[in-house]
Amino acid sequence: MIVLFTDFGLAGPYTGQLLAVLQRDAPSVPAVSLFADAPAGMPKPCAYLLAAYAEWFPAGTVFLAVVDPGVGGSRRALIVEAGGRRYVGPDNGLFELVLRPAADPRSWEITWQPPALSASFHGRDLFAPVAARLAAGAACAALATPVEPIREPGWPDDLAEIVYADHYGNALTGLRGGSVPPAAHLVAGNRTMAPAQTFSAVAEGQAFWYVNSNGLVEIAVNRGRADRELGLAIGSPVVVSR
Amino acid sequence: MIVLFTDFGLAGPYTGQLLAVLQRDAPSVPAVSLFADAPAGMPKPCAYLLAAYAEWFPAGTVFLAVVDPGVGGSRRALIVEAGGRRYVGPDNGLFELVLRPAADPRSWEITWQPPALSASFHGRDLFAPVAARLAAGAACAALATPVEPIREPGWPDDLAEIVYADHYGNALTGLRGGSVPPAAHLVAGNRTMAPAQTFSAVAEGQAFWYVNSNGLVEIAVNRGRADRELGLAIGSPVVVSR
Amino acid sequence: MIVLFTDFGLAGPYTGQLLAVLQRDAPSVPAVSLFADAPAGMPKPCAYLLAAYAEWFPAGTVFLAVVDPGVGGSRRALIVEAGGRRYVGPDNGLFELVLRPAADPRSWEITWQPPALSASFHGRDLFAPVAARLAAGAACAALATPVEPIREPGWPDDLAEIVYADHYGNALTGLRGGSVPPAAHLVAGNRTMAPAQTFSAVAEGQAFWYVNSNGLVEIAVNRGRADRELGLAIGSPVVVSR
Repeated sequence: MIVLFTDFGLAGPYTGQLLAVLQRDAPSVPAVSLFADAPAGMPKPCAYLLAAYAEWFPAGTVFLAVVDPGVGGSRRALIVEAGGRRYVGPDNGLFELVLRPAADPRSWEITWQPPALSASFHGRDLFAPVAARLAAGAACAALATPVEPIREPGWPDDLAEIVYADHYGNALTGLRGGSVPPAAHLVAGNRTMAPAQTFSAVAEGQAFWYVNSNGLVEIAVNRGRADRELGLAIGSPVVVSR
Repeated sequence: MIVLFTDFGLAGPYTGQLLAVLQRDAPSVPAVSLFADAPAGMPKPCAYLLAAYAEWFPAGTVFLAVVDPGVGGSRRALIVEAGGRRYVGPDNGLFELVLRPAADPRSWEITWQPPALSASFHGRDLFAPVAARLAAGAACAALATPVEPIREPGWPDDLAEIVYADHYGNALTGLRGGSVPPAAHLVAGNRTMAPAQTFSAVAEGQAFWYVNSNGLVEIAVNRGRADRELGLAIGSPVVVSR
Repeated sequence: MIVLFTDFGLAGPYTGQLLAVLQRDAPSVPAVSLFADAPAGMPKPCAYLLAAYAEWFPAGTVFLAVVDPGVGGSRRALIVEAGGRRYVGPDNGLFELVLRPAADPRSWEITWQPPALSASFHGRDLFAPVAARLAAGAACAALATPVEPIREPGWPDDLAEIVYADHYGNALTGLRGGSVPPAAHLVAGNRTMAPAQTFSAVAEGQAFWYVNSNGLVEIAVNRGRADRELGLAIGSPVVVSR
């Protein structure tokens, strides 16, 4: 399976063009869009989201991961193999958190060249064809050459910031559940929150935190939108009060 | 075919994870998202929407219908068979309007257990695997045990409220076309509206009502957004003035 | 492949119903949504978008192109063949810019009749079944009769207006790159912009223009939203200052 992780949006022309390329180049491989609204142009929060959500997918999955504010500049184009999964996308830190915990990660710089490469849409012209070829069975070595990717040692293992707000207004942090004591309080948007197991365990309008279904600490308001009511956005700090 | 009816949103991670599960567990069954923006956390308006839109699909269709504010609490997980179609989702009234008119409806409580069940995403962990198994040929009795679902006798057959606002700002009611006299006026958002057959039959900026392509009474403004211009939201009352 | 170009939105019920029809009537043909948020009810800007984006797809592609404010009225339903691609949709100017440059364009009025035709959703009831039949191998002559479509000779070859704002807030014009001198400045939203090759070539917050990956002149702000910051919307004029 090919999984899309991008900031391209679903409705406009970009995801459709990616899917058309994947269909053309790997017609028998199913493709699913996981995120089309990853934090736009922000590789750092995206790196935490990608690592948390990729883990749910089985070994062998190919991720087409494109959050690429430097497109058209000098940043390299990568294939990364980590934890049995492969990732195709830009060399801008996006893969830091999948690389870091992996036992034997490997990285390649893409050398395969498309017949035509636009300056602004490498997702369609470069990354999607490479992801399709990998998913259809091509070897990394046939498309790319080993490289040492940019690493971000200064980025923490767990990021105490909001990294995504979902369709319901729930605010996901870059903190994995295991990094926060189960009874800790969180402070975000000037509000202090206790943990709760489920929405129905707290009163209507109350903010709380829990470990979401992909292992990240998430802030929600029962029957409300945490993002608006607490004034949270990508990058808003979260403090763990033990 | 498996049809998704949820309040999960399309762009974020939830619908993609559902589709990945369906692909994994029923790879040869096509899956289509019908609604990913059903009224969030509101089983009542969703029940009217689901009933109206399900009817268009052929017998044999499996609906993965997840609007589930009580996820993680004690609400039961259901399979419902009604009108030749099957529905998988929470026991919270969501299936009231498909059950009510059905000749011989049947319901089961899901007993199948996934290897891992998160507290907050039964759509992915429980309902999608069950829908996939049903669509791939499993019998209800192999996954579930007969049960009497929660019924909502107080909900009317036709709901005189807004149940959805679409991409154009058209406001759908829970009234079926046959329940409203063809020449009746509607009052909603302090505006009185006559019926019209098509958008082009009324002046620009004029509000009108019609029976939409799925049989529900819908309020629109020619070349405008009825939701904003009339101040309509989910739950806004509609009065039929005969 | 069948490519969807509509103003229906993705999340609501319309695109899902189109995809269900295509799956039913042409199960072996992949379908991809290119635009579900084309300018709502505005065939003119859509005509420029469609022409620019269709060109990227190979010959043989069938476009299901539905931007149809006159649905239910007297406008005709068309099949158009131009540049080796076929288009199915309403006769309201939407195909003007694919017809104009084509060597030997042909048009047909659809005569095929569905078992049931709603007044407001010809996309589902008429256009999608016809697109599916074409993609599955039916001849145009079996579904339609030759016709002279409405032409719009007053529409320019290149439209100096905003025709779309994407997920990032970049504003696309109806100007093809070749129609604007490479060093020209553009004036839009009271701002004068120089061209740049990539986002990273300009300072943060700076507006610039470039030729996008589908050949249209596009206005962007590095790390910002051009639509909001420059006050641009569909129809906003753009002046080329040579």
